[in-house]
Amino acid sequence: MTPEALDAADVLAPFRQRFTLPAETIYLDGNSLGALPRDTAARMAEAVRSEWGEGLIRSWNDAGWVDAPGRIGDKIARLIGAGPGEVIACDSTSVNVFKALTGALSLAPERRVILSERGNFPTDVYMMQGIAALGGGQVEARLVEPGALEDAIDQTVAVVLVTQVHYKTGRVRDMAGLTRRAHEAGATIVWDLSHSAGAIPVDLAGAGPDFAVGCGYKYLNGGPGAPAFLYVARRHQNRVMPALSGWFGHADPFAFDDTYRPAEGVGRFLVGTPSVLGLAALEVGVDLFLEADMATVRAKSLSLSGLFIERMAPLCAGHGFRLASPENPAERGSQVSYSHPEGYAIMRALIARGVIGDFRAPDIVRFGFTPLYTSHADVAAAVAVLAEVMETGAWDRPEYRSRAAVT
Amino acid sequence: MTPEALDAADVLAPFRQRFTLPAETIYLDGNSLGALPRDTAARMAEAVRSEWGEGLIRSWNDAGWVDAPGRIGDKIARLIGAGPGEVIACDSTSVNVFKALTGALSLAPERRVILSERGNFPTDVYMMQGIAALGGGQVEARLVEPGALEDAIDQTVAVVLVTQVHYKTGRVRDMAGLTRRAHEAGATIVWDLSHSAGAIPVDLAGAGPDFAVGCGYKYLNGGPGAPAFLYVARRHQNRVMPALSGWFGHADPFAFDDTYRPAEGVGRFLVGTPSVLGLAALEVGVDLFLEADMATVRAKSLSLSGLFIERMAPLCAGHGFRLASPENPAERGSQVSYSHPEGYAIMRALIARGVIGDFRAPDIVRFGFTPLYTSHADVAAAVAVLAEVMETGAWDRPEYRSRAAVT
Repeated sequence: MTPEALDAADVLAPFRQRFTLPAETIYLDGNSLGALPRDTAARMAEAVRSEWGEGLIRSWNDAGWVDAPGRIGDKIARLIGAGPGEVIACDSTSVNVFKALTGALSLAPERRVILSERGNFPTDVYMMQGIAALGGGQVEARLVEPGALEDAIDQTVAVVLVTQVHYKTGRVRDMAGLTRRAHEAGATIVWDLSHSAGAIPVDLAGAGPDFAVGCGYKYLNGGPGAPAFLYVARRHQNRVMPALSGWFGHADPFAFDDTYRPAEGVGRFLVGTPSVLGLAALEVGVDLFLEADMATVRAKSLSLSGLFIERMAPLCAGHGFRLASPENPAERGSQVSYSHPEGYAIMRALIARGVIGDFRAPDIVRFGFTPLYTSHADVAAAVAVLAEVMETGAWDRPEYRSRAAVT
Repeated sequence: MTPEALDAADVLAPFRQRFTLPAETIYLDGNSLGALPRDTAARMAEAVRSEWGEGLIRSWNDAGWVDAPGRIGDKIARLIGAGPGEVIACDSTSVNVFKALTGALSLAPERRVILSERGNFPTDVYMMQGIAALGGGQVEARLVEPGALEDAIDQTVAVVLVTQVHYKTGRVRDMAGLTRRAHEAGATIVWDLSHSAGAIPVDLAGAGPDFAVGCGYKYLNGGPGAPAFLYVARRHQNRVMPALSGWFGHADPFAFDDTYRPAEGVGRFLVGTPSVLGLAALEVGVDLFLEADMATVRAKSLSLSGLFIERMAPLCAGHGFRLASPENPAERGSQVSYSHPEGYAIMRALIARGVIGDFRAPDIVRFGFTPLYTSHADVAAAVAVLAEVMETGAWDRPEYRSRAAVT
C-alpha cells in the first residue's frame, strides 16, 4: 500500500488534530520530547490563572493538587498494565531509579549487587554507581555485556536494573522472561519503561516485576522535564522504608511530628512538595493517550517503522547507513536507529530541513514514531529529504559538523 | 502613623500591581504559597506554545532550557548573598536536603552524626532519618531541644542541619554564629532557607556555611511545587561526589558513557532532566524579586508584622491568643504566629471571610507578610476581621472544626 492509502485507513489519524505541531516540520523525535497536546495550553492557563492565581493555597484541596501524583499515577498505570494504587507521578526518572534501587536493596539485605548492562541508559547506570559509592563498598554496581545479563543473575545479585526498550537501538527486552529469571535467582528487578510507556503494550501485572520507572515527557507528551513515574508492586509497598523519606510520603504530613512514619501504599514514595504545574501538563498528555487503544497504537507504530526501514534500504545500500534496530518487528520499540560515521552532521542537516530526529553518540541517528501524530506520509517524506541530503552531499558543511548542540 | 499613611509612604507599593490577586481576599499565606506574578501567565504560555509546541526538542538549546537550573540559580544567589556558580534551581527542597546531607557526610567520613533540633520542619528531620536508615546504623540522626543545639555540636557531629527562620514561630537563627560554632567543632552545616529567601536578608558569603537549601514557591513566588534550590559553597563543590548521580550532573551527559564522572562545579548536583515548565514559572518570580531592594523589603516586612502584633494586642488580652513569634523584630522572619487552642476552627472561619493565613498543628495560626503585595491596610483589615470572628463567636461552628483540609 502507498503511504497515502495507509493513512486513509488509519483509525488513529484524527488524533493528529489534537496536537499542535509546527508547520513545515516532520517531527520524529517524540521519543525524546513528545509533542504539545492541543489542550495543554488552556489547561496550563487554568492551573496558573485560576488555581494558583485565584485559589492560591486553597487549591491544594479545592483543585486536587494534593491528589495529583496518585491520580495521574493511576492513569499511567492503565497504560502499563498496573493496578490502581501501584503508580505515582513524581520527581525525575533518575530520582525514581534511586528510590526503586534502594528499596530493592532493602528487601535483600544479605545481597549487595546491583546488576545492569553496559550501554543501558546512562542515568540508570550512574544512579547505580552513586548508590554504590554511598554504600562505601557495601554495594556493588555491576555491569555486564547485554548478551550476558541473564546468565549474570546469580545468588549475589540483589536487584537487576534493565530497560525494556533500549534508548539507542529500540530493542525490546523480554519483560516476563527476564523477570522470571531474576525471581528464580532470588533477585528483584527494576524495569525502566522510559521508552515503553505509550510506545508499546506493557503488562506489569502479567510479568510481575518488583519496581518500574519511566518518563512523562516522551511518548506520554507531558512536556519538557515532566514529572516521571514510579511503580512499586503492591506486595512490596508496605515492606519498603523509603530512603528519600520526605514529608509528602509521611502518613500524616500535616501532623508535623518529629518522626518519619511512611504512608501506607505507593504514596510513601513521594518526597517533597509535588510539581503542580508539571503535573497539570502531564495529566493532559496522559488523558489524551488514554483515549487511544494501545493495540492499535502498536500496530500503527510497526506500520510506520516498517515503512521507514523499507524506504531506507537504498540509503543503506548506497550511503553507508547500517540498521541498528531489530528488523524483527516483535523485537522493536517505537523507534528506528541507524549507525553512520557522519551521523552527527547528517542529523544537523536533516533538522535544518525540518526533519527532526536526533543523534546519539558515537554514531547513531535515531527516529521515533509516535502514532498519535505521525503519518505514513511523514515517514515517506522524511526519507525523501534524507535521500536528497545524502545524494547532494548537503550534510558535509562545517556548520553541521560543529558540536554546539546538546540534545 | 495610620496604615494609610504607612502605605502612602511605601516605596514598594507599586509592586502590588505586578501580581494577580483575587478580589475580596487578604492573602497572608505567601510564606506557604506565594502569589501569582502578573507576568507568569504570559511566560508560561510562551514556554508551552512557542518553546515546547513550536521549538520542540530544539528548545533545549535554542530556548535555554539546558541552562535554566544554573541561570536561575545564579539569580537566586543574588537574593541570598551567594556568588555565581554556587546555586542551582532543581528538584524539591527535600531532595536537595538529601544531597546536602549526604555530601556533608562524605566530607567527614570519620564522623557519623547528623544533628538537628526537635520541631525543625518535618521534611528536614525525615530526610535525616531516611539517611540514617539507609546507612544501616552507620549514621545517626540526632535531635535535640532547640535551646540545646549549639552545645550539642561535639566531635561526633558530621553535619548540623538547621532552619534559619522557623516555619512555625518565625524565629530567626544566628547564621553566622551557629556556622562558626559548627566549624569550630569540625562539623559542617546545612541551612534550610525555605522561610528566608525573599523574606529576610541572607548573607551566605559572610556567614560561610557549607550547604543551603530552600524553596521556590514561598516568598520567591515561583508557583505551586516550584523547583527548589541548592547552594554548595564553592570550596566543597568539586570535593563532593553526589549521591544522586544522575545524567544531568555528568561532565558530558551526551557522551552517554558507562561511568559517572561529575561535572565541575555546582552543576554536578543536578540529577534528572530539569522541570522546564516549573523553572519557567520560577524564573518570573525570581526576576520580579530582583527588582526590589532587599533592605527595603525587610524594613516593610517588619513594619507590617509590627503593625499586626500591635493590633492583635487586644485579642491576646481578651480572646486567648498567645504570641508564638519573637516580639523583638531582629529575631523575627516575615511571619507572625499565635497559639490558640481553637486555632484550627478560627483559621477556617477567617479563610471563609477572605482572610487567608494557615494553621500548623497543634495550635498555631500563622500569618505571612509579603512586602511586595501586602499593604498595611491589609494587615489592619485582617485583624479587624479576626476581631469580629472572635467577638461574635463565629468560629465556633461544626464546619470550621471539621478536619478535611490538608494545608
